[in-house]
Amino acid sequence: MLPLDSDASVVVLAHEQFPDRAKTAVGVLRYADYDVRAVLDRARAGDTVADHVPDVADAPIVERMADALEFDPDALLIGIAPIGGGFDESWRPDVRAAIEAGCDVIAGLHYFLDEDEEFAALAAENGVDLIDVRRPPDDLTVSEGRARDADADVVLTVGTDCSTGKMTTTLELVAAARERGIDAGFVPTGQTGIMIAGWGIPVDRVIADFAAGAVERMILDAAEDHDLLFVEGQGTIIHPAYSGVTCSLLHGAMPDRLVVTHSAGREAIHGYEAFAIPPVESYVDLYTDLAAPVAPTEVAAGALDTRALDADDEARRAVEAFGDAVEAPATDPVRFDASEILDALR
Amino acid sequence: MLPLDSDASVVVLAHEQFPDRAKTAVGVLRYADYDVRAVLDRARAGDTVADHVPDVADAPIVERMADALEFDPDALLIGIAPIGGGFDESWRPDVRAAIEAGCDVIAGLHYFLDEDEEFAALAAENGVDLIDVRRPPDDLTVSEGRARDADADVVLTVGTDCSTGKMTTTLELVAAARERGIDAGFVPTGQTGIMIAGWGIPVDRVIADFAAGAVERMILDAAEDHDLLFVEGQGTIIHPAYSGVTCSLLHGAMPDRLVVTHSAGREAIHGYEAFAIPPVESYVDLYTDLAAPVAPTEVAAGALDTRALDADDEARRAVEAFGDAVEAPATDPVRFDASEILDALR
Repeated sequence: MLPLDSDASVVVLAHEQFPDRAKTAVGVLRYADYDVRAVLDRARAGDTVADHVPDVADAPIVERMADALEFDPDALLIGIAPIGGGFDESWRPDVRAAIEAGCDVIAGLHYFLDEDEEFAALAAENGVDLIDVRRPPDDLTVSEGRARDADADVVLTVGTDCSTGKMTTTLELVAAARERGIDAGFVPTGQTGIMIAGWGIPVDRVIADFAAGAVERMILDAAEDHDLLFVEGQGTIIHPAYSGVTCSLLHGAMPDRLVVTHSAGREAIHGYEAFAIPPVESYVDLYTDLAAPVAPTEVAAGALDTRALDADDEARRAVEAFGDAVEAPATDPVRFDASEILDALR
Repeated sequence: MLPLDSDASVVVLAHEQFPDRAKTAVGVLRYADYDVRAVLDRARAGDTVADHVPDVADAPIVERMADALEFDPDALLIGIAPIGGGFDESWRPDVRAAIEAGCDVIAGLHYFLDEDEEFAALAAENGVDLIDVRRPPDDLTVSEGRARDADADVVLTVGTDCSTGKMTTTLELVAAARERGIDAGFVPTGQTGIMIAGWGIPVDRVIADFAAGAVERMILDAAEDHDLLFVEGQGTIIHPAYSGVTCSLLHGAMPDRLVVTHSAGREAIHGYEAFAIPPVESYVDLYTDLAAPVAPTEVAAGALDTRALDADDEARRAVEAFGDAVEAPATDPVRFDASEILDALR
């Protein structure tokens, strides 16, 4: 568990990228239980969060960590990731200031903060933790094929591509279920989800042989605390680079039901434009046929990201067409309401 | 490249497990280009290889490395793996003797020899290399989806389960193709294949996000030297634990054609007996439907391991039934002849 329970208070670093290119920062503001006391963005210092993201709790945007210490945070959370996942040296004074003020520092970079000599020495001196959520536990093993023994129903979010709203859909479903009094748990599998939830394993960073085993472990653990688990999916089963992670999630989680996510208007794999996205209905068979010999499942609902469509009625028509294609109730869980598909998932 | 070209000479450690539980040792004896000067097996010392494995080059079996030094080897190769991949401390005197005699030591264990303090110090002192083939290169990246640009035809071996003869089938096909004068290359993806070929990446040990990228890199490299590549497959696409590796191989290699392998009589996933093996014909659709959106492929041949069948005519009937099921020419490449299916793969 990370030091991020509901009593925690954090500052989120998002220099020059808030909000549109700060997916982690915005995800934390929207979904985390803990308190975001300030955002660091030197390009927008003086604004507040509400100036840019209207529907989350407001917080000041400040230039540097030194300016955020008056809000008495427990931790600094790195809320952006440069391409390649490196550490931007311009952040060093903020990380240094956080450590010197007794704050833990939590990051999801490829570059591990606890391997940085200056930060490691300073953290030891000040008695704080440097937490790299992208580092998997070192005691993972192969799956034993036991996820279906879990004492909880399991719903896995899958997609037609990367970046189709799998994490958002999963978190909106958890919130909608809890609102109805269902004991729902979120199973995070990527760095942003882990930072939001305060626990989890970054499945894409696990040794390939242990990927399904990492998912299985999370399912079995979370099933002890909840009746219904919503598992954050990754990638797509036809991704030229990441399909192995998706496949490990499908067979490791052994979901009872699937939610298929798609982005309206998307025609090719994101970043791999030579690869066309096939008709969405074909994914239903791909996912369920592949799951069947290990643990049969069904596509029980669809979630469509309609951001590309301006008008609500156009979005509603797109959602209906998507539901027809995947032969299940569908919604846009952000634009409309996740609870529209909740009945199909219980 | 490992120091294992055709001029190399090695001693293979297989204590108490030769030949039936020494898959790597027997694979090296059967398929490697380099010279096996002796086998270490204290339970069979005094025998020769020909007493146990009749159809490979003979070599003495000796009790300890000290007894093998007279054959002037370049390297000691660890040819067995205990469950869990640990280092058996009873091998320590042999490894020590090898290093002190100026031999490199090559292993495929989870336990890395070059992290063993005694071996590392001794190797430095004696100027020899400790080579852990299970450690992937540290500069791997995500796949770019380019394997189909390779200037070679690519054949991938897939399976209905683990241990269905994927490596053996692949190596027999390479040998049969070369016998016909085809410029065929072997692409090794597991530790035994890597030790046999002297190069390769252990795909199951790679970070999940980079698994397809590792395969792509090998395809692009090997295509520069050969016209027809035979890629060693791993696992099965419906394996509860390892399917992610299989999926990464399928999408990373972008094979033009597949060979499906199966073990006659196998009814459940090896080691996961609760999971039945579905009808073999269902695998044809699973593999080709999953490949199609990334790089279309076809099942062009079948290879059946008939070891469980005593009589040749019974084995021949099983091969024919298997070929009918996968709708492609089939053989048992060990019992009969790999060249029977070669025409279908060119």
